[in-house]
This record gives sequence, C-alpha cells and structure tokens, in this order.
Amino acid sequence: MDDRDFLARLFTAAVKAADPLTGIRRHLPAPPKNGRTVVIGAGKGAAQMAAALESVWDGPLSGVVVTRYGYGCKTRSVEVLEASHPVPDTAGLAGARRLVETISNLSENDLVIALICGGGSALLPSPPAGLTLEDEIAMNEMLLASGAPISAMNVVRKHLSTIKGGRLAAATKARVVSLIVSDIPGDNPAFVASGPTVPDATTRHDALAVLEQYRLSLPDAMIAHLNSAAAEAPKPGDAVFAQHTHFVIGSAGVSLEAAAELARAEGVTPYIISDSVEGESRQVALVLAAISREIAQRDRPFPKPAVVMSGGETTVTIRAKGGKGGRNSEFALAFALAIDGYPISALAADTDGIDGSGVNAGAFADGTTARRLRAAGFDGRKLLDANDSFSAFDAIGDLFSTGPTGTNVNDFRAVLVR
Amino acid sequence: MDDRDFLARLFTAAVKAADPLTGIRRHLPAPPKNGRTVVIGAGKGAAQMAAALESVWDGPLSGVVVTRYGYGCKTRSVEVLEASHPVPDTAGLAGARRLVETISNLSENDLVIALICGGGSALLPSPPAGLTLEDEIAMNEMLLASGAPISAMNVVRKHLSTIKGGRLAAATKARVVSLIVSDIPGDNPAFVASGPTVPDATTRHDALAVLEQYRLSLPDAMIAHLNSAAAEAPKPGDAVFAQHTHFVIGSAGVSLEAAAELARAEGVTPYIISDSVEGESRQVALVLAAISREIAQRDRPFPKPAVVMSGGETTVTIRAKGGKGGRNSEFALAFALAIDGYPISALAADTDGIDGSGVNAGAFADGTTARRLRAAGFDGRKLLDANDSFSAFDAIGDLFSTGPTGTNVNDFRAVLVR
Repeated sequence: MDDRDFLARLFTAAVKAADPLTGIRRHLPAPPKNGRTVVIGAGKGAAQMAAALESVWDGPLSGVVVTRYGYGCKTRSVEVLEASHPVPDTAGLAGARRLVETISNLSENDLVIALICGGGSALLPSPPAGLTLEDEIAMNEMLLASGAPISAMNVVRKHLSTIKGGRLAAATKARVVSLIVSDIPGDNPAFVASGPTVPDATTRHDALAVLEQYRLSLPDAMIAHLNSAAAEAPKPGDAVFAQHTHFVIGSAGVSLEAAAELARAEGVTPYIISDSVEGESRQVALVLAAISREIAQRDRPFPKPAVVMSGGETTVTIRAKGGKGGRNSEFALAFALAIDGYPISALAADTDGIDGSGVNAGAFADGTTARRLRAAGFDGRKLLDANDSFSAFDAIGDLFSTGPTGTNVNDFRAVLVR
Repeated sequence: MDDRDFLARLFTAAVKAADPLTGIRRHLPAPPKNGRTVVIGAGKGAAQMAAALESVWDGPLSGVVVTRYGYGCKTRSVEVLEASHPVPDTAGLAGARRLVETISNLSENDLVIALICGGGSALLPSPPAGLTLEDEIAMNEMLLASGAPISAMNVVRKHLSTIKGGRLAAATKARVVSLIVSDIPGDNPAFVASGPTVPDATTRHDALAVLEQYRLSLPDAMIAHLNSAAAEAPKPGDAVFAQHTHFVIGSAGVSLEAAAELARAEGVTPYIISDSVEGESRQVALVLAAISREIAQRDRPFPKPAVVMSGGETTVTIRAKGGKGGRNSEFALAFALAIDGYPISALAADTDGIDGSGVNAGAFADGTTARRLRAAGFDGRKLLDANDSFSAFDAIGDLFSTGPTGTNVNDFRAVLVR
C-alpha cells in the first residue's frame, strides 16, 4: 500500500462525508403514507441542503429555509429566504415566523424534514412577546464578549426565544426528522443553531445562573422574562417530541469517522484525537510530531501501525513578507522538520480543497521531506520562518491538490506511523 | 479520591523516579565474588550519581567520573574530575584518558559500573590518533549548525572517537554494567553521551552518508579517518560486549512510566503521549485541551476515566512586561481557559520544583478555574496575555508548590478526564 495514496483516500472519504448529499441519503426518512412532506431549515448551508434533499426525494415537497444573504442557491420547490448573519435583522424575524407558520397547521400524518446547520441561531431571531429584535442583538453581543463557552451562551439564548431549544419542533403535530450539519466541537445536536428542533434539559434558572456567573446585565425586560414560567421550553421526553428524531449528518467529527472507517477497512487502526484542534499551525505540528515520535519509538499511546487523525481550524501568524502557503502546508512543513528521519508520513489539507490563498488543498510530509528539501538546495527551517511552506512543497513535488471540493469541515490531518 | 491529591501523587512518583538513587537501587549489580568494583562515568549529573551509588554500595569502591565545571559534589572514594561543556577542553581530553586507564587493566573477575548521563559526549573528547581537540570542536560546531537530528550527529561522532559508540566499554575485560540517565527523547541508551559503553550497529559508511546528506565539510584528516578501517567500532553482538549490560535508570520517560504505574494502581488508566513535547506553552495547551475535550465528550482516543501524561520542555515567549509565571503555570492557565466547564483537571509542573523564576513548581487547572477567576474579579484571558499566570493561580490558591526537588527531567503534565 502506498502511504500517500492511503492518506489521500482518507481525505477523500472525509470530504465525501462532508457533502450534505451523503448524509441526507443515509438518513432519508420514508415519505408519509397519508400526509404531506414539508421542509424547513436554517443556516449558512441550508439552501444547499434543501437542493440536495430535492435531488434525492421521491414525491412532492414544499417548504422554506432561511440562509445568509448571498448564500442562497437554486432549488426546485423549497423556497429560500435570506437574512442577516451574524447580526440578526428583520428579514430573519420574518423568516423565523415563516418557519413556524409553515409547520404549525400540519397533522400527525405529515412529515417535517428540518435542515439545520451552523449560523441558524443568528438567522432566526425570535424574541418572546414584549422583547424586541434590538434586545436579542444586545444579548448576543454581550454573550459573545463575555468569554462564555458556547454551551453557556446557548442556555441563555434558548430561554429568550420562541424558536430555539426545541420550540420550533414543538410548534407542529407532524413528525419532525432533523438532519443536522454540525459546526460545533463534539457535535451536540442541541447546540447547532441553538437547537430549534432539539429539546434540551436546561432551565431558565440555569440561564439566570449563567448571567450571574459571567456578570451579564441584560435589559430588564429580558430578566423579567427569565423570571417568568413562559421562559421554560418543553423538555426532552415531553410528549410533543415523542415522534421526533434527529441525526447529525455532517461535521468535522462525522468526516473524521468516515475516514476512520476506511482506515480500519484497509487494516490500519485509526485514532481520532480531536475534531477541534486550534492554535498556531507550526505549534500544533510540534505537539502532533511529539506524539507521533512516541508511537514510532515506543508504540504508545497507540501501537504501530496507527493513523492519528484530527480536525479543527489552526491559524497562521504571518511573520514574513512574500511567503506563500496556508495553514495546512505550514503545519506540514513544521511537522516534517520535527519528524526528520522517522518512519512517519502525514497529510494536512483543507476539506474545502483550498489551503489559504493557494491552489493546493494541503501538503504531504514525511520523514524524508527535510532531506529531500536539502537535496534540492532548500532550507526547510528558513522557508518555515518565511511563511513560505507552499514553495517548500512545490519544490519537491509534495503539494496535495484537489481543486475546490464544494464542502467545508475545516482542516483534515492524518498522520500514519508504521 | 481527590483529583488534586491524585495528580500531586503522580508528580511525586515522577520526581522520585528521577532521583538517581531510585534507579541505582533498582538496578544495583551484585558485587563481584573475586574481583574489584570500579566506577567510571561522565555527564552533568555523574558526580551526583557516584555519590548516590556510594551511599548504597556495600564494599570497596574506587574509580573516577568526569562532570562539568562547577557540577562536582562531595564523594567518598570515587574521584571527580571537572571539564568543559558544551565546548570540550584539554581537561576533558585528560578525563577521557583517565577513564580508559582506570579500566583497561581490569580482569574478567572485576566489575565496572559506568554512570552515564547527558553532557557526557562533550565532556569526553577523544579524537583518534592524528586528529586534534580542535578538529573535534570544529566537527561538533558543524554538526550542531547542520540541523541534523541527534541520531545523525551521533553516527558521525561515534566514528571519530576512541571512546564513543561502545569503545570505552570495549577497553576492558571486566564486566561492565552501565546505569544511564537519559536526556534523549525515546531514551535510546546508545544516544546518551554518544553511548561510550553501548555499542551500536552503524558503520563509518553511515557516517560518510550523513556528511554528504547535510553537506558537511569536515577537516581532511577526519575524512581520511572515516575512510580507514580504524574508524569502525566493535558492534553489538561482538564477544567483547558479551558480559555487559545497561539500564536506563532515569529520564523523562522513566519518570512518566513511574507516574503511570501509580495511576494504574489507583485505578485510572494512564496514557503517555510523549516524553518530549516542545513548543510555546499556551499553544501546547490548546492541543492537549482539544484532546482532553474529545475524551470528555466522546471517550476517544481514550475511554474515561483516563489520565494523559506528557513530558518535554515547552517555552514561553514573553509578550508583556511585569507579568509573573513560568512555562508550566502559563500552560495551566491557557489549558484552563480551553476546558472551561469540562470535567477535566490537570497539573503542570517542573520536576525540579521551580517553574521559571517563581517559588512554585507549577499549577493546577480544571474546568472551574476560569469561573473561579471571574468570581475573584480576574480575567484569565487578560492575565494570560500579560504572561501573568502566576498571579492568576496565586489569586485562587491553585499554585502547586514543592520547593526544589533536587532532580530534573523537565516538565511533567498530567491531565485527568473523568
């Protein structure tokens, strides 16, 4: 087995799994016997999801999804509305109302397919009676500035909305099947777009506790709402959700799992260490190199052969002018310098097919990269210092190019230790 | 079980294992029946190792060890010589000769205990006939500037020396037991101090290949030596080594293993991910936090409960004036901010007991650190930006203090996920 082919096949599997069509096909519900099928949805990719669903759905389909301005695409029968993200606007208010109206008169015989993805929270502002869009905008700004983790922000949002925290799904008697593309580390479906169709167990008292913990002073009307029973959403286990189901059909995690499945089928044990690695690319490379060397030298924490995979979104701080390269090729170069001579090979690439401003998706790195750079007259360390990782891999023919893939679940890194 | 007590006990186990006395006791050879016991040794900790050996050895002992200027300590019967490190000098030349003389007339009935640790390579310059100390110094400077990994540098050094690559141990008929404290990632005993008592399988042709690969122009006399059969050292398996044994008695890896053993005994599965993590402390923290969150959320790559341990030496780039803190407390603060709210706790501390210029060894971090900092009126992010991690942990009573431990195998990090 050629190691690069193997790594490239893992990438391809990850990208394929990130295509909403793949997940929609896999989790497609059966059409209702005596009812209508209605689509609702929200998020930056909601229009693409609707189009993908239309392409495989057998039978009549109607409905409406809300996406970001400029993110719409051609659909056959599902209407696409556009609204503002990340700061909500009145178009979002109208969109949220339309979603509720679209499903509120359906019966138990009908099916609602909810297409939910990242961005859906801001796209569906829906303040409770007595509160305004401005209140919701102010709340969001405060939350984002507070340093609170997304789980804490979600608890507050869900108790100051008539849509979030499962309320949208509670607005219909129809069976709701939610197909969710997650942009959240860990893929908790209740966190994606503040979970309009997924109930969670937190209470308004939890929301008040978050406000206290992060010293947030929301408008008085919002505090008053949180102190009223009206703020409480239906809970998991409530009868209204009895027929509902949801599936995370795409995410960095789902893509890593697809790649892991392929690795296993090809006889190499996969280890997913994180779907959400952050940090400076060259520094992340040092840590992953240290782990890889430990595997190579001592068969721990994983026995050889092993492929260690991770996702997330690293960053590059530009230190030099005139260099060329993205976060994945910079990772690959720093990684190569740190595993010089080891029986390790790696692929780091952006799942959208474009690494930074380059024409490549990423680059291959292995224990011979540094030597081959030297043989070609290049100093890998100097190229790294110059943020010129593209030139390094271009010089030795180790760029990895795919063209735009049409999907995006951020970085894909696979490290193979033999 | 209290998590902090548990983490602190792991640290104590790691530090205890790093004390040469612990390893010497464990691997102490039996005295010879009808022969003498002679000590030789070299490295920055060789005098301490000799003193530790004297404290537990039952019977007569003589010999000589070479350490760095100022690194000597009081011994009873083993002579301590001092020489220059990292640039060798004539005192080192004389020291190397003394080591050979000390053991060359011993018989099969005698026992040589060789105490080897980091720094021993530079402390024992020993150029072959026809080459000078200046040649050896020039070679070392070139190797260090070449960017070659230590394995490649060692190949060259071992073929331009009358001591390295097992030659010292080949100079005696006595049985040689080497007790080695490793400062090398992976703990390959043949790499520590260029392995004066541990043969390896590389040849002078490998050395010439390294020179070519790294484009190194050594003095003509050195090249001539590498082209002669005299450059070839005895090999593993040669009769001269038949009675010899060696043990790595201390290292970052050995300390991590000791801590792992304790964790296992207390019912928490340990995972050692690396003995040699490098990189900016706060960035290393982001990667370890991402892995820890994955364990907490999805029981992978390790199932909960798990304790993930690592060693190495991270660095801190100072960005602000007036801040206080070392690389371990800075790691701990960045880690705490990245696992806010998660059921994760960690200890990061320097095994020498002093983190940077502080009075503490390190700090505890857990999923409540950020909240407790806020409650105390501090902004963890701002303190991190100010390189003021000591003040952060001081404010909430989460510093970890031990006083100087008298040992040093660099950083110790343990992350507990429940």
